[in-house]
Amino acid sequence: MPCWVNGVPAEGVPVRDRGLAYGDGLFETISVRQGRARLLDRHLQRLQLGCQRLQIPLGIDSLRAEISSFAMQVGDGVAKLIVTRGSGMRGYAFPQPQQALRILQGSPLPDYPAAHAEQGVKLFSCATRLAEQPLLAGIKHLNRLEQVLARAEWQDPGYAEGLMQDHSGRVIEGVSSNLFMVDAGQLLTPALQRCGVAGVMRAEIIEQSERLGITCAVRDIGLAELMEADEVFLCNSLFGIWPVRELAGRVWERGELTRILQNNLHDLLGG
Amino acid sequence: MPCWVNGVPAEGVPVRDRGLAYGDGLFETISVRQGRARLLDRHLQRLQLGCQRLQIPLGIDSLRAEISSFAMQVGDGVAKLIVTRGSGMRGYAFPQPQQALRILQGSPLPDYPAAHAEQGVKLFSCATRLAEQPLLAGIKHLNRLEQVLARAEWQDPGYAEGLMQDHSGRVIEGVSSNLFMVDAGQLLTPALQRCGVAGVMRAEIIEQSERLGITCAVRDIGLAELMEADEVFLCNSLFGIWPVRELAGRVWERGELTRILQNNLHDLLGG
Repeated sequence: MPCWVNGVPAEGVPVRDRGLAYGDGLFETISVRQGRARLLDRHLQRLQLGCQRLQIPLGIDSLRAEISSFAMQVGDGVAKLIVTRGSGMRGYAFPQPQQALRILQGSPLPDYPAAHAEQGVKLFSCATRLAEQPLLAGIKHLNRLEQVLARAEWQDPGYAEGLMQDHSGRVIEGVSSNLFMVDAGQLLTPALQRCGVAGVMRAEIIEQSERLGITCAVRDIGLAELMEADEVFLCNSLFGIWPVRELAGRVWERGELTRILQNNLHDLLGG
Repeated sequence: MPCWVNGVPAEGVPVRDRGLAYGDGLFETISVRQGRARLLDRHLQRLQLGCQRLQIPLGIDSLRAEISSFAMQVGDGVAKLIVTRGSGMRGYAFPQPQQALRILQGSPLPDYPAAHAEQGVKLFSCATRLAEQPLLAGIKHLNRLEQVLARAEWQDPGYAEGLMQDHSGRVIEGVSSNLFMVDAGQLLTPALQRCGVAGVMRAEIIEQSERLGITCAVRDIGLAELMEADEVFLCNSLFGIWPVRELAGRVWERGELTRILQNNLHDLLGG
């Protein structure tokens, strides 16, 4: 699988890159099918929001062309994009001038069991809580130690994902996915103003549900409310939608609304 | 100045290193004088604590020898050490087996104005607040976007450092230093259980003050209490101690206790 740094094949990055020094950058995990980067507009939109928040200057149009060329080489797989603030000397102050670094890494499509999408997955309750930092909430930055620690909490492959809450006990997301629930026909997903990553698939599902005439509320959700939900599902840009089958002893069947949204996504992602 | 990756001269790191992907690692900024790494035991102690918290396996004894050899090449300057969890495939789960990566970067001694230590420095009040994450508090991990954003708040070189508070308004630290205050002859420094980096110079000063018969309390400190302090100073492993001359209109002179601690450190660091 190809790997590019600043648009050319390479396997290394400069030792003084600030992505390495401080996690000073952003990333996107992009599904590539038949040589095309899926949901690319949404990925670039979120990246642009991240660049604004972190004040990283980046030419989005040339990056779009670069990702499209890269996706052709990947064919079917995953294109992981990392954008950093580039190299600098010691110290937190921005380098002058700033020269963002772009990395594109190809990898094969993950080999998810088909049962995950059909029968649903078991969700681990992570003890690692997400800190509340509004300045970094929503964007997909490179400071991911909370996710690393949360993912290290379980080794049992019976758990396909882990549930993360914030320090106040609000339900926020999966370690590498977003979360939705259905309550009395209404779709709900946690607000992400304080912490969490606003996934591109989450945005896609919110928009699709509106088109289907299903209202989707974005607000704070407590654990008790989640446990009483009629349906619960996870989503991300690689696996689409997985129903949640079990969490802390509570068992769900794949629900009707989950199935409708899965079918709806199928055409978008598979083709 | 030399740069080593895993003990040999190199200028790049593998593109799949988890330090770059997730900030999944730790660092130390070590003062080197006359070919010797200063406060090395304290740096290695903190690094070891960080490795335990992040579950990164690392041989400290061989690393100590490596840093000492590196310091000989640096002579007088700074040795920045980065330890990451090493390379892995996509995804937050630890790679199996884990193979930590070690980077040593040399750089010249920073050219601090002598007046900073003698007349003191002006402190900028950062609006960026530190999130509370007990799992990561105290250690010097690579997730440093809060410091990057805080440092970007001022360009005026009249400010030598910035003051950071947590979301509850407690005073925590400087952007790249720790903070002490003196109140009625007693030394105080903020508790760092929720956020902040427990600096090696902070630990050194706490221990030295005890030896001098000065009690040092480590506890929560509010901004109002700081503003009423008799003396305020900053410290880190490179500049030692800088008195704070001004913060938000409040002006201090260099205090007696600050001067005593500065003199005490001088022998340790300069020689």
